[in-house]
Amino acid sequence: MNIDSTNHKRKSNDRRVNWKSFGWQYARSNVGTFHHAVAPVLLLGQCITLLPVVNIFNVNFRTARFKLRSFRCIYSLLYLALTGVYCVLSIRWYIRKGLNISYFANCVYMVVVYLSAWLFFFVALRWHTILDAFGNCERSFLRDHYRRQTRGTFTLSWKIRLATIVIFTLALTEDWLSYYSAYQSNMVQIATCNRTNVTVWQNFYLREHPHVFHLMPFNGFTIAVTEWINRCMRYTWTYLDIFIISFCYGAQFRYEQIFRRLLAFQGIACPANFWHNLRLDYVAVSELVNVLDTEFGHLILLACANDMYFIATQLFNGFQRRRAIANYIYFWYSLLLLMFRTILMLYVGSGVYVASTSPLQLLRNVPSNSWGLDLQRLTDEVASGENVLSGKQFFFLKRQLILAMAGTLVTYELVLLDQVKKTPDSATDCSYF
Amino acid sequence: MNIDSTNHKRKSNDRRVNWKSFGWQYARSNVGTFHHAVAPVLLLGQCITLLPVVNIFNVNFRTARFKLRSFRCIYSLLYLALTGVYCVLSIRWYIRKGLNISYFANCVYMVVVYLSAWLFFFVALRWHTILDAFGNCERSFLRDHYRRQTRGTFTLSWKIRLATIVIFTLALTEDWLSYYSAYQSNMVQIATCNRTNVTVWQNFYLREHPHVFHLMPFNGFTIAVTEWINRCMRYTWTYLDIFIISFCYGAQFRYEQIFRRLLAFQGIACPANFWHNLRLDYVAVSELVNVLDTEFGHLILLACANDMYFIATQLFNGFQRRRAIANYIYFWYSLLLLMFRTILMLYVGSGVYVASTSPLQLLRNVPSNSWGLDLQRLTDEVASGENVLSGKQFFFLKRQLILAMAGTLVTYELVLLDQVKKTPDSATDCSYF
Amino acid sequence: MNIDSTNHKRKSNDRRVNWKSFGWQYARSNVGTFHHAVAPVLLLGQCITLLPVVNIFNVNFRTARFKLRSFRCIYSLLYLALTGVYCVLSIRWYIRKGLNISYFANCVYMVVVYLSAWLFFFVALRWHTILDAFGNCERSFLRDHYRRQTRGTFTLSWKIRLATIVIFTLALTEDWLSYYSAYQSNMVQIATCNRTNVTVWQNFYLREHPHVFHLMPFNGFTIAVTEWINRCMRYTWTYLDIFIISFCYGAQFRYEQIFRRLLAFQGIACPANFWHNLRLDYVAVSELVNVLDTEFGHLILLACANDMYFIATQLFNGFQRRRAIANYIYFWYSLLLLMFRTILMLYVGSGVYVASTSPLQLLRNVPSNSWGLDLQRLTDEVASGENVLSGKQFFFLKRQLILAMAGTLVTYELVLLDQVKKTPDSATDCSYF
Amino acid sequence: MNIDSTNHKRKSNDRRVNWKSFGWQYARSNVGTFHHAVAPVLLLGQCITLLPVVNIFNVNFRTARFKLRSFRCIYSLLYLALTGVYCVLSIRWYIRKGLNISYFANCVYMVVVYLSAWLFFFVALRWHTILDAFGNCERSFLRDHYRRQTRGTFTLSWKIRLATIVIFTLALTEDWLSYYSAYQSNMVQIATCNRTNVTVWQNFYLREHPHVFHLMPFNGFTIAVTEWINRCMRYTWTYLDIFIISFCYGAQFRYEQIFRRLLAFQGIACPANFWHNLRLDYVAVSELVNVLDTEFGHLILLACANDMYFIATQLFNGFQRRRAIANYIYFWYSLLLLMFRTILMLYVGSGVYVASTSPLQLLRNVPSNSWGLDLQRLTDEVASGENVLSGKQFFFLKRQLILAMAGTLVTYELVLLDQVKKTPDSATDCSYF
Repeated sequence: MNIDSTNHKRKSNDRRVNWKSFGWQYARSNVGTFHHAVAPVLLLGQCITLLPVVNIFNVNFRTARFKLRSFRCIYSLLYLALTGVYCVLSIRWYIRKGLNISYFANCVYMVVVYLSAWLFFFVALRWHTILDAFGNCERSFLRDHYRRQTRGTFTLSWKIRLATIVIFTLALTEDWLSYYSAYQSNMVQIATCNRTNVTVWQNFYLREHPHVFHLMPFNGFTIAVTEWINRCMRYTWTYLDIFIISFCYGAQFRYEQIFRRLLAFQGIACPANFWHNLRLDYVAVSELVNVLDTEFGHLILLACANDMYFIATQLFNGFQRRRAIANYIYFWYSLLLLMFRTILMLYVGSGVYVASTSPLQLLRNVPSNSWGLDLQRLTDEVASGENVLSGKQFFFLKRQLILAMAGTLVTYELVLLDQVKKTPDSATDCSYF
Repeated sequence: MNIDSTNHKRKSNDRRVNWKSFGWQYARSNVGTFHHAVAPVLLLGQCITLLPVVNIFNVNFRTARFKLRSFRCIYSLLYLALTGVYCVLSIRWYIRKGLNISYFANCVYMVVVYLSAWLFFFVALRWHTILDAFGNCERSFLRDHYRRQTRGTFTLSWKIRLATIVIFTLALTEDWLSYYSAYQSNMVQIATCNRTNVTVWQNFYLREHPHVFHLMPFNGFTIAVTEWINRCMRYTWTYLDIFIISFCYGAQFRYEQIFRRLLAFQGIACPANFWHNLRLDYVAVSELVNVLDTEFGHLILLACANDMYFIATQLFNGFQRRRAIANYIYFWYSLLLLMFRTILMLYVGSGVYVASTSPLQLLRNVPSNSWGLDLQRLTDEVASGENVLSGKQFFFLKRQLILAMAGTLVTYELVLLDQVKKTPDSATDCSYF
Repeated sequence: MNIDSTNHKRKSNDRRVNWKSFGWQYARSNVGTFHHAVAPVLLLGQCITLLPVVNIFNVNFRTARFKLRSFRCIYSLLYLALTGVYCVLSIRWYIRKGLNISYFANCVYMVVVYLSAWLFFFVALRWHTILDAFGNCERSFLRDHYRRQTRGTFTLSWKIRLATIVIFTLALTEDWLSYYSAYQSNMVQIATCNRTNVTVWQNFYLREHPHVFHLMPFNGFTIAVTEWINRCMRYTWTYLDIFIISFCYGAQFRYEQIFRRLLAFQGIACPANFWHNLRLDYVAVSELVNVLDTEFGHLILLACANDMYFIATQLFNGFQRRRAIANYIYFWYSLLLLMFRTILMLYVGSGVYVASTSPLQLLRNVPSNSWGLDLQRLTDEVASGENVLSGKQFFFLKRQLILAMAGTLVTYELVLLDQVKKTPDSATDCSYF
Repeated sequence: MNIDSTNHKRKSNDRRVNWKSFGWQYARSNVGTFHHAVAPVLLLGQCITLLPVVNIFNVNFRTARFKLRSFRCIYSLLYLALTGVYCVLSIRWYIRKGLNISYFANCVYMVVVYLSAWLFFFVALRWHTILDAFGNCERSFLRDHYRRQTRGTFTLSWKIRLATIVIFTLALTEDWLSYYSAYQSNMVQIATCNRTNVTVWQNFYLREHPHVFHLMPFNGFTIAVTEWINRCMRYTWTYLDIFIISFCYGAQFRYEQIFRRLLAFQGIACPANFWHNLRLDYVAVSELVNVLDTEFGHLILLACANDMYFIATQLFNGFQRRRAIANYIYFWYSLLLLMFRTILMLYVGSGVYVASTSPLQLLRNVPSNSWGLDLQRLTDEVASGENVLSGKQFFFLKRQLILAMAGTLVTYELVLLDQVKKTPDSATDCSYF
């Protein structure tokens, strides 16, 4: 009741502390929770309009929730509305131009990204439930006997934030390369087509977004909005992988803590109570994994399907095009980044399964005289191999999945080798629309 | 003995109540059983000559049985006889015309549909055994302590009937589109070939069923019989999926009831008796799944093989043909409906497996002090993952199957891309036979 | 000791009863054993020089053994020597003619068949060990409490012998068709090439075995020997599948007996002793399966690899050749027979696994009050799914294997569709060598 | 403490006994350990600069360790430095010449071999940890009750050394064939191009290493260094497989000892103590397998990926080239050796898994009256199937893997059949660089 009442009071203050919550005001007690670790990742997401949750930096994870009448939420809804229109118009434009393989890929990209944005919105709606699930699981892991074992290793915050920074920096570089590459082919085109009535940037934006300026007036405002939508869409895709990596680390880290604790007590005769508590901790993490699988299964499914589809399409394009050096660098950097992101996401995701089975060997080493019901049940639970994230159970995030995906991709590419045809260089095409 | 004697009496009255049984005469006690839920689905099947079982709307599921001397049975047998002749003649016609890929697909379609009709006839013969299996399983699920948990959720009847209505409506629309598309290409053909001696409908039926009117006189009766046979065959295929979905829901719903009951008792210390009864219920459903797997395994195998084959063939045709707009719409609607039906069937089928493993996490949360032999056995049974429907054990209906099928189909299509050749437009072909 | 001494006496009489043993002299006590059931299959094998084991019809299975100084053994060794020379010469001939896809398939066929002959020879050497394994397992299954359950069903002998007769009859028909088809193309060739100096049969044998008559004089003796070798080789391949089917039935039947006994006792409270004995019986059959897997694993591996290779090759040829009607019938009959044999063999082989897991549901229905250590162990053993035959553990004979093989074959064929080229008709080629 | 102090003394003497340690100075107590068995294999590796560990022939396995200031280490580091430069220059050369399929394969080969050299260096750094893991596991296996069972069978040393000698001899032969084949095409080229200003050997080395002599002066020293680097690189690849086979035998042999011991005690009633000790032994081996999987997983992954890639590339080349007889023999010998090595490595690797599950059937035969907790746990551990080596868990070394790899390779080759094009014969190309 105590918690409930404080909760209630805070609610009424929510509006006031809304902006303050960006500051780093959390106390020591908060450190080590998933809520604390993932806060900057959420902030990053909110910059690109995703996950409109307030109080993400608050000490008490129970205050973090979706709030309709907040700036973040309005910002998100505005983006969803505008992007909806943008996508419909773009897809209509692509269909009218005749759907070739590259236009079709663009349509898939738009649909997937827009869908992701909505899915993130629904995740935001249920964010307090998810934090509750984490909170229930983490309660005993924040005590000293677990903290002791993790000293000197990477903490959860470090892991999540480092992965986020690395991937996001690489994505920013890719974005810059994309600009540079498009700029270069614009210069070529202006020279080829003898354009004198347009500036370089005018030409640039006209060629980048013909499906927009076909319908809209060409001025600073429309360019800014178009670019904003494009930036957000582009980073949404990257953010999907970052988000999956974050919560996978969140679950994996708890299994690792159990493993480290077992390792510390290896060879020591422990009372039945110890095993009882350990089993409860293990079951709590398994339950968390279960919740994550239910809540985020569709995100995992979408991310994997999308990444697979684009790797296949891009690899196919890799055989096909011969471009200028800037385009060439951009193309391969972008493809390699996509592969790196996909593999990292799958690797971290399957790390949950690996971490969940790691205590098995240690449990087998426990001498038979301290054996009991709890140890028996714990061993069964660890050995079952059920504690694994999945894409709505269509596939399970295990290490073998990466190999299976790679093998399938190689087969598809080899089969498609026959279909490679030269496409004309778009840089020397002088029409806009 | 009491039941047997009443059973015996009812038997002698069967003929009299035969037609009455179409009415909604069942009492409240019946509601919630599979027999009750599936009755309208059976009636739908009987309209297209399948499953000639009498007393399907009777309160007592034991009265529902196959009866040789009933109108439904004679209707079925007439259809089987006529269609047998029809199929043999049609296949002979296709072979004489030279078996191309599309003619071969037609032959496969006929053989599969005719085989399905016979299989449904044999299912009808054993229908009382199947209802017995359901009855044995459902006895305890109809009691109040289970009914309480399912309040406010979709009931079994709703689920089965809704799925049936949706799929059947979509199939009716497809049928209409097929007619419209064929009508359109007839208009084109009449215009092209300068036909004046035939009416539009004459031309229509002559071109639709050349293999019939090649041998039979062209009059209203032969047209009606041919159309009746064609309609029944067309809907038999759809009905196969509907039927599989129905009994899958029937089994899945019981597992879900167990899950909901466990959820309601979570955290409450239950006596050993509770777990004993719960285990018996779980084993009863597993036994039902076992029976369904044995009785309907060949139907599942046939449905999956057939759907896979036709998706592959149609996808291949998708690359191939450029048609008029009506044909185009019909083609893609038909393909998408086929995919939707297949995926829905596989999804619901694999839902049985998902529902059967869902109590696992809850069982792990049961505290060790209320642990006992029944809980141990129940956990083992839930964790074993054996409670799954299959296509005669050649494949198991799990979620991963859908992905495996999709992957295989994509590989086949990519490999076949090389083989795509333009076929001549049949709309401008002026010969009938 | 009693058994040992009688055994010893019999040994000294072995030579005398050698020929008598072809008679049906076994007493009633023998009926129901694998030794009794498989005897005619062995005799069939010995007609084509395989499995030179004496006393196969003797009542006492311990007398059946390999004997170096017996007619059968000498017959086998003669065949092995002659066929060795024959194969080396033939392969040399094919290599000299240039290895195309059809010649290469012939070489593979020869190597595999010759290897099979040697493997069967080694099986004969260890035949008494295999019968011992069967004997140990079958001891308790021949008692009345098991015999009672199998009344009214197909006995083991029936199953094995029926399968053998069916497959062998179909193979004989194929052989006749092969002759007829070759005869027809000879008639064509004689007419085309205007041959007058040779008779039809002379032409026939010269064209059938050019690799032999290239080196050997053409006379009745060489024709007879060549034909004998060819017949034996041809039937060896078929016999491989028959033999595998036989011992698979041998193991499967025992699992089925256990299942039927469990079914008979379902719902009856059984003493701990009953479960103890049942477990021992189950373990005995599992041990038999283990022994069979070790002893015959390479035969299964060879048979599957060979069948797969030839189905792939023949399917590929199916797209390729257009022949005369007799050749056409022979080709498709031969291909369908090969597929039927392969699927039957895999189906019966995987039936062992299916039968081994069938008691699981019944064991789950056993009430908890009669639960005990033996029931626990038995359930674990049944549920483990380890009782399965395999091809040296490279693959396991389960139902899914058939689908996996079929899927792989379809992929290979679709990929190879591009490679189909017209080959010249060999019927109009007038050169012999 | 006693051990520690002697350990300490020995350390100070290390330098002095460094060279003596090549002698066969180990006492009887050492025989049977992995340390003893693998010593000659390590020596072989050190000849080609890998695994710079000192005291490999010492009786006490604790003295064997990496030592920076030893001749072997300096030799390794020199090789790593030189080869680094060599690889960078070579890859630069290949990229400049334009990356065709064969040049790309060369680059992959260099990167993989150089990476392997570094990985082996890191293995050397941790060699004492690995020997410790083996030592812990082997402690009880060296006692008499285990030694007794292995009498009359191949010992561990025999197995490891025989495999090493066979593979290495075959690799030496391949190397000689490679020389001979290159020599032959040189003779052809000199004759074709009318070269008179160069000797045969000059021409030979200029054509073998154009990427070196393009930059370096052509003299005896540079030739010697280049050849030394080339020899070491070539054998490193072979050595990778040899090394994996060695440690796999090391683990497999212990499982086999347990199996043999169980076999010897089959049917004898054993005290609970016996089962307790046996379980501890089994768990000890499983822990060893766990350690090996962690330490050498990347080596297994690298070896499999590399072998697969080269078999695919070479098979593809097999369809492509028609060469002189010497080149032809070399090509097929090299390909078959590669396949043999790969299959042997996978077979021995998966043998660990097979050996780990082999006791299962024997454990099931143990009568229920001697059943107990240790037997229960042992059975669970054996049946779990977790004791298996893997390539960083991306794939598990089981027998089925070999079939899966073969199937994938066949698919790739069949798909690539279309891409086969004639390449010009390099023997008649007269330019050097």
